[in-house]
Amino acid sequence: MTLAASVLDTGCLIVHGPDRPGIVAAVTALIARHEGNIVSLDQYSDDADGGAFFQRVVFHRPDFAAAIPELEADLDATLGAFGLEWRLTDQSTPKRMAVLASRSDHCLLELLWRHRRGELPVAIPMVISNHSTTAESVRSFGIPFFHVPSHGPDKTEAETALLRLLVGNVDFVVLARYMQILSDDFLERLGVPIINIHHSFLPAFIGAAPYRKAKERGVKLIGATSHYVTPELDEGPIIEQDVARVTHAMTAADLQARGAYVEREVLSRAVQWHAEDRVIRHGNHTIVF
Amino acid sequence: MTLAASVLDTGCLIVHGPDRPGIVAAVTALIARHEGNIVSLDQYSDDADGGAFFQRVVFHRPDFAAAIPELEADLDATLGAFGLEWRLTDQSTPKRMAVLASRSDHCLLELLWRHRRGELPVAIPMVISNHSTTAESVRSFGIPFFHVPSHGPDKTEAETALLRLLVGNVDFVVLARYMQILSDDFLERLGVPIINIHHSFLPAFIGAAPYRKAKERGVKLIGATSHYVTPELDEGPIIEQDVARVTHAMTAADLQARGAYVEREVLSRAVQWHAEDRVIRHGNHTIVF
Amino acid sequence: MTLAASVLDTGCLIVHGPDRPGIVAAVTALIARHEGNIVSLDQYSDDADGGAFFQRVVFHRPDFAAAIPELEADLDATLGAFGLEWRLTDQSTPKRMAVLASRSDHCLLELLWRHRRGELPVAIPMVISNHSTTAESVRSFGIPFFHVPSHGPDKTEAETALLRLLVGNVDFVVLARYMQILSDDFLERLGVPIINIHHSFLPAFIGAAPYRKAKERGVKLIGATSHYVTPELDEGPIIEQDVARVTHAMTAADLQARGAYVEREVLSRAVQWHAEDRVIRHGNHTIVF
Amino acid sequence: MTLAASVLDTGCLIVHGPDRPGIVAAVTALIARHEGNIVSLDQYSDDADGGAFFQRVVFHRPDFAAAIPELEADLDATLGAFGLEWRLTDQSTPKRMAVLASRSDHCLLELLWRHRRGELPVAIPMVISNHSTTAESVRSFGIPFFHVPSHGPDKTEAETALLRLLVGNVDFVVLARYMQILSDDFLERLGVPIINIHHSFLPAFIGAAPYRKAKERGVKLIGATSHYVTPELDEGPIIEQDVARVTHAMTAADLQARGAYVEREVLSRAVQWHAEDRVIRHGNHTIVF
Repeated sequence: MTLAASVLDTGCLIVHGPDRPGIVAAVTALIARHEGNIVSLDQYSDDADGGAFFQRVVFHRPDFAAAIPELEADLDATLGAFGLEWRLTDQSTPKRMAVLASRSDHCLLELLWRHRRGELPVAIPMVISNHSTTAESVRSFGIPFFHVPSHGPDKTEAETALLRLLVGNVDFVVLARYMQILSDDFLERLGVPIINIHHSFLPAFIGAAPYRKAKERGVKLIGATSHYVTPELDEGPIIEQDVARVTHAMTAADLQARGAYVEREVLSRAVQWHAEDRVIRHGNHTIVF
Repeated sequence: MTLAASVLDTGCLIVHGPDRPGIVAAVTALIARHEGNIVSLDQYSDDADGGAFFQRVVFHRPDFAAAIPELEADLDATLGAFGLEWRLTDQSTPKRMAVLASRSDHCLLELLWRHRRGELPVAIPMVISNHSTTAESVRSFGIPFFHVPSHGPDKTEAETALLRLLVGNVDFVVLARYMQILSDDFLERLGVPIINIHHSFLPAFIGAAPYRKAKERGVKLIGATSHYVTPELDEGPIIEQDVARVTHAMTAADLQARGAYVEREVLSRAVQWHAEDRVIRHGNHTIVF
Repeated sequence: MTLAASVLDTGCLIVHGPDRPGIVAAVTALIARHEGNIVSLDQYSDDADGGAFFQRVVFHRPDFAAAIPELEADLDATLGAFGLEWRLTDQSTPKRMAVLASRSDHCLLELLWRHRRGELPVAIPMVISNHSTTAESVRSFGIPFFHVPSHGPDKTEAETALLRLLVGNVDFVVLARYMQILSDDFLERLGVPIINIHHSFLPAFIGAAPYRKAKERGVKLIGATSHYVTPELDEGPIIEQDVARVTHAMTAADLQARGAYVEREVLSRAVQWHAEDRVIRHGNHTIVF
Repeated sequence: MTLAASVLDTGCLIVHGPDRPGIVAAVTALIARHEGNIVSLDQYSDDADGGAFFQRVVFHRPDFAAAIPELEADLDATLGAFGLEWRLTDQSTPKRMAVLASRSDHCLLELLWRHRRGELPVAIPMVISNHSTTAESVRSFGIPFFHVPSHGPDKTEAETALLRLLVGNVDFVVLARYMQILSDDFLERLGVPIINIHHSFLPAFIGAAPYRKAKERGVKLIGATSHYVTPELDEGPIIEQDVARVTHAMTAADLQARGAYVEREVLSRAVQWHAEDRVIRHGNHTIVF
């Protein structure tokens, strides 16, 4: 497949830290002296005068895997002098993504279907749901499905079961309309990024029932927001948002049906960008290259 | 001009009230028996079972002005039987619109320019600003400009001056980035609809400095909202909204510059729809036909 | 389900012909005297002075099916006097839709999935493909799949097999990226409307390989067009179109991958509108209510 | 003003030619050794294996103007070794732009108005029109207006008058709905880039009366395209395109009125990008950074 071929022997280097003259030159020289050929380069500084610097470089290097140790040693030495942090990934190694879902299947199936088309560079070791309704659909994609019910106000048991399945097995988790709030303790013990899709244009309509609230306020556009999960509900760094036009004639149920298409699109983009190391978190913001 | 020709001898009838079978037939029969030919007809019921009914009919009738008294008498009799309210306007009589502005000229000039192109079916007897910076631009369109300064926390004097200019002379008022909050007393004494443009996608970022707040929250779209003014700040019925895509690389000033184009577009649409009697207020909602 | 409930005892009346005063009144009076309650009404005249008139009325009438004969007799008498053509459908009877596909599954699966969600008011008695690759996916939706290969330049055998499956069993046919050109003879013998999705913004890039041509021309947007099939290739009446933004950095393969999402969205809308009797053909145009 | 401040002591380097490993490192090292601090960097290669390479680097360098000779000498030596072409511009020196217009004022006034807001980094030494209708509007912006009539089929006299005004005085020319076709001879003697706005989504509806053709074809979106002018009518490299949704109910005149807003937006973006050295021509394509 084209996509697979394009990531062979390809590295992605993320650099961030205090901006100083000469960083770009130092990074590109480093890649050049390790025989890398730059495929794409993005950089951003949030303030020309003493701001934070962010860079993403994708480069091709024959026999990349073998070169990693030398590259890493050089990066440590070179970027350490600038006080920068960095992260080097092998683009031919897909991130392992778990999907948590509930009854709704639109976001879940969209991710599985894009994955099958080769458009999401991830491995999907498991889908977990608190309902069993989508089990058959998921398994028809050849992906393991686990049912972890979540009854009553005490989520400890469910979260323990989730952690047993997830920890060590995944690099990030996607909440594809998973309608349960996860505890701070869960987030901490999971220890990998979680991407959520919220069914409104945040910060409008935080919390439950955003389509009903949208109908009540009489908005002319509805939206969806994909963001990283933090302990503050619906307050994490936003990765992507989009909207769709609605009219006075649409009921809250109509808004929900229309919004489903925005949700699946917004979540898919956010997941793809995260999987491709295009998203850098900085405080409560994201840099999306 | 084409637009002017199209509204000669043309009436617009707005009907609303409790939904009951037979309303559409009664209204269209009434128009037919007064020799009107229906040009467009929109109708909406917010609940098939006992909801509220809304209808807008535009019809052509030779010598329309002369027929108004008879039409009104018939409407009273016919629609009274259904318990409906109605409003009949002569489309060849443009509504009188005042524009209140401040230093920013983008919304103000867009309205004046669209008016000169014949795209806004209104008369503009005056523009009022609390700054004199746009006086020359406004007058180059052949429109009177009045400067009503607004100093200090006490707005009584300024509002009195505004009322003296406006009352009796205008059918509605547009706040084209007029950065002053109007008192409840002013709204009541003015007695005509006021349309505002808010520089965010409401209900996100209510109040002052929405672009700064948008930058802080890290949203990926910015927006603008045009709504009728009510005593509750930024809470009035929404007429129109739209958004534009932004990136992490844009400063709050960049958002403001980009947003200006959304504002002028959203406000222009809202003003045009209001001027064409396309907007019906219903509680805190609008029906836009 | 909500959708199903909303079409019980609901009729849809399509009227078109020469415009004359009084048509709307006559139609709405007719519906009223048969105890119908109008749910929605759209009308359009392409020229106020002697043009063509089009109307779509959806109305609720208890025990609708039993009332059809009387309604039809009245329609014949009433609308015949105006020289109008009309069509009355029972909204609780879904149209029977066949889908013809090829190797690509994105448009096909989108239609099946929306149908399963209850968003497409159709019955799908069969999917036919000239490849067997999607058989399993289709059957997992509980829908019959038939494989009709199409080898060599002579399509007579394949078209005969298609007609044997389709004629009498379907009300319209959707070409969901079916890459075969159908003969004039086939279109005539099939005798029901065919909806196609073309992977460009028509009339740009008619014929084969539109994404390659789009790349060569260097366009900044790609598009998709859904239209009724006529003997002239890609020249039939357009139902819906949409576009997506692309950049210089995207290859023709990237355009194709991105365009797939526009195609499935545009085709889905066109199919839904056709299924809901919202589309009226008029010469080489469509009125979409 | 913010914009003006941001371009002080700022250079923009455009590099293009055959792709080879090490170019980015060489360019960024060069900038670093001349004490430049990179503000933004974009690069693109149209084929990882032996394609063409394009780069745009904006950098800040105290006392930039004084450093230009040394920079240019180094660029010659360094990039010559790679077989690359380059262009270095001082961002504090705005390009000189002439606008050619006709009767329509929407594109013309939009450019003048954005320029006055400080959003277009250009100087506008003149507006030329073959009609005098916009003279007063143009001069109210403090910009010289010249009337060059264009009667009859022989354009030689008019083109000679245009060349006398333009040659030597401008860096590029914008056709803001200038409805005259310019001769090949004119293009050659002018010798600077010309940006046109065409009122359709090219390559659909090439040539005259695109809105009428769009109405006849029954499209559901109309568009506008800004492109560099070449001897082949409407075939030059596309810089930007956009579209707007239309309906069956709109006349060709309505399409034209709606399209005017797409035209002014698309042309403004194209002009801004050209003025900021973001557009690189490559054959009949553009790279837009």
